[in-house]
Amino acid sequence: MTRRGFLLSAGTTTGAFALGAGVGVAANAAVALRADTAVGAATVNFYGAHQAGIETPFQAHGVFLGFDLKRDTTHVMARRMMELLTDDAARLAQGDPALPDNDPYLAEKPARLTATFGFGPGFFTKLGLSSQIPAGFADLPAYRIDKLVPEYSGSDLVISIGSDDPLTLAHAVRQLTRTARSFSSIRWSQKGFVRSQGVAPATQTNRNLFGQVDGTINPAPGTEAFAGQVWAEGSPSWFAGGTQLVLRRIAMNLDTWDKLDEGGKEISVGRKLSNGAPLTGVHEFDAADMEAKNSAGLSVIPDFAHMRRARTDNPKEKFLRRPLNYDDGILLDGTSNSGLLFAAYMANIQTQYLPVQQRLVDLDLLNTWTTPIGSAVYALPPGCLPGGFIGEGLLS
Amino acid sequence: MTRRGFLLSAGTTTGAFALGAGVGVAANAAVALRADTAVGAATVNFYGAHQAGIETPFQAHGVFLGFDLKRDTTHVMARRMMELLTDDAARLAQGDPALPDNDPYLAEKPARLTATFGFGPGFFTKLGLSSQIPAGFADLPAYRIDKLVPEYSGSDLVISIGSDDPLTLAHAVRQLTRTARSFSSIRWSQKGFVRSQGVAPATQTNRNLFGQVDGTINPAPGTEAFAGQVWAEGSPSWFAGGTQLVLRRIAMNLDTWDKLDEGGKEISVGRKLSNGAPLTGVHEFDAADMEAKNSAGLSVIPDFAHMRRARTDNPKEKFLRRPLNYDDGILLDGTSNSGLLFAAYMANIQTQYLPVQQRLVDLDLLNTWTTPIGSAVYALPPGCLPGGFIGEGLLS
Ligand code: HEM
Ligand code: HEM
Repeated sequence: MTRRGFLLSAGTTTGAFALGAGVGVAANAAVALRADTAVGAATVNFYGAHQAGIETPFQAHGVFLGFDLKRDTTHVMARRMMELLTDDAARLAQGDPALPDNDPYLAEKPARLTATFGFGPGFFTKLGLSSQIPAGFADLPAYRIDKLVPEYSGSDLVISIGSDDPLTLAHAVRQLTRTARSFSSIRWSQKGFVRSQGVAPATQTNRNLFGQVDGTINPAPGTEAFAGQVWAEGSPSWFAGGTQLVLRRIAMNLDTWDKLDEGGKEISVGRKLSNGAPLTGVHEFDAADMEAKNSAGLSVIPDFAHMRRARTDNPKEKFLRRPLNYDDGILLDGTSNSGLLFAAYMANIQTQYLPVQQRLVDLDLLNTWTTPIGSAVYALPPGCLPGGFIGEGLLS
Repeated sequence: MTRRGFLLSAGTTTGAFALGAGVGVAANAAVALRADTAVGAATVNFYGAHQAGIETPFQAHGVFLGFDLKRDTTHVMARRMMELLTDDAARLAQGDPALPDNDPYLAEKPARLTATFGFGPGFFTKLGLSSQIPAGFADLPAYRIDKLVPEYSGSDLVISIGSDDPLTLAHAVRQLTRTARSFSSIRWSQKGFVRSQGVAPATQTNRNLFGQVDGTINPAPGTEAFAGQVWAEGSPSWFAGGTQLVLRRIAMNLDTWDKLDEGGKEISVGRKLSNGAPLTGVHEFDAADMEAKNSAGLSVIPDFAHMRRARTDNPKEKFLRRPLNYDDGILLDGTSNSGLLFAAYMANIQTQYLPVQQRLVDLDLLNTWTTPIGSAVYALPPGCLPGGFIGEGLLS
């Protein structure tokens, strides 16, 4: 058998063939590999009025880490923990190793690394800080659609880490976990992803594992709408510029979902699978016509459609959705262990999030294939300046 | 608080700052996102003398899926399964949906997708094909260093899928699993990764989670050495152009590893962490001087060093290593569940692999921090032409 040429053709996407003389078969080494390293070198500034990782455009990979404070962790120790975690995060975001790190080589390609910190209800109560709980911040009520398991629920502290590179991410998880574990015990870790850089245009809305275009109706980073929905005003004052996170782990049953045809899938949300356009429109961002009827006199976007149930004209009930897909192998029955790490950010959970969630609990055809199995809420402090630390307004 | 401009600067890696007027803090939205989509559009040809996914340069993400044949699966059904799996794999590699697939939108960015098929020992025995077992193909013996668990060991069939995009990969896993499950039950799924495209130069050797440059001594794709080590000759004849896979899941204890200093880490393998050079050299590909002594008269590359134990001058004991990192969250004790999906490809396990593995079992300082927890072997048929199917020489 003849030896085949090896193609390493940066940037090409051609299926170049090399015929193996004498066997008449096409080579399968046709590849397109990147020669540049811009994805790895890119950084997101850690410091600012707000924490990084919220307004930051999606990184390809993300992890949420849940920690519980150790019983004997005091206010002073919690402050020390946040100082150290801030230092780690700021260094790693620049491609520098966290201290002490005798293995700097996994830190050197930040690939837009961000680490974002949030405090669960237990953080406030355990540290005697209940008077400082932000307005509207509380655990969600128990919903009848929920099948929550403790392995994915609650925690006193969350660290959400994102990067376009999975190796960089794994390293950062380890460094931040090492720091946090001196003061807390890790309770869970949840990993998710969207598309890699260079796969789809950076401005394209993500797809979830149901194949749906997911994220169309969302405030654009840098706009007034974004700031109004996401960043809290000063109540209490330490929380000005912070935000609240609802993290729901929602299992998606891909096996039963796949039994639907395309039309069946589309009416569950009210949007087209092909490009995410409303069923009454052509393009993704066309306004939906909620009054339109079909020839049988039925609503084109049905009453039970996720989109009809979730949407609101009340600007006070809007928020940012920044979900990641998860796919964690195979369950015992052979079905896939996958779904959405549904992460929503808002200034006030109570007024902005709860009404929407309640409508979806009451009626939403998507519930047929989705099951919330984890749930947690966090108050995310504002950002900090060099020399400061995340949570300083609360812990100083 | 002023609203900040949103930067979507394709290809730049600058940490562009936008000062929030009045607050004096730097914005953290500095990002570099890819505008092009070459990573997503790139394809690897499915057809050829050899299966794709072996000589193919590393994709960023990979999954190994282990299946056991159902008790009543006959020779004819196994043939049908391989015909259908071949059809799925060929379509998905081009960015086309597998049939039947009413959700083509997750298939359309192949990102160098490959699916590679292999038969475990049980495949041959259950189908009455023991006479066709390739020369040298057998399960590894039990090693004293092993702590194997069934969740990661054995299986009658393996499907190894790679892609530079995690969403594409998740979709392909689901499509191929659906086909295979009509004839077999899934036993395990193991997910791994290396760096994303665009993070490091495509020609750069990977790093593992210990931070080591891993893969320096490896046959280069397209060379005589590669073909000689990896592709089997015709014994039996159906296996000509095939290869054998040893898949070991090796846990790496990052917590104890991190207690070493850089020098301590380096002597365990005999190479520098910074660039993978041998301790007796300067550059990664410098030849190692195994005789060199330090001032104390000791070998610079110690007797127990992984590299000294694993290396051989016997060309008949060399093979291809194509390992992926795995990082599957947190174990109950709070330590990380991570390591290497060590995948080695060779024409003959018995003559090429077993001597090396035995030497590493007998002595290898790396064993201090590594534990094999899964093990499996597979015979991977040669490739096929359009109209044919993987395994046709065995199953026709
Ligand atoms: C696995 C679970 C879920 C899936 C697969 C899902 C999927 C989708 C999809 C495909 C859309 C339409 C495109 C878009 O605007 O992004 C959408 C819209 C939306 N979803 Fe969900 N969603 C899920 C859970 C939730 C939850 C838990 C909430 C909040 C409680 C929520 C709130 C919304 C909102 C507010 C919209 C925009 C509605 C509009 O204004 O048109 N979703 N979702
Ligand atoms: C977690 C487990 C392992 C780790 C972290 C590891 C790491 C490394 C590293 C860093 C090198 C030096 C760089 C290179 O040439 O690639 C190396 C070389 C090598 N390893 Fe491993 N390895 C592991 C397991 C194994 C196993 C199970 C085998 C085979 C039974 C093996 C066979 C080899 C061989 C043949 C070389 C090249 C030696 C030479 O010719 O210089 N390794 N490994």
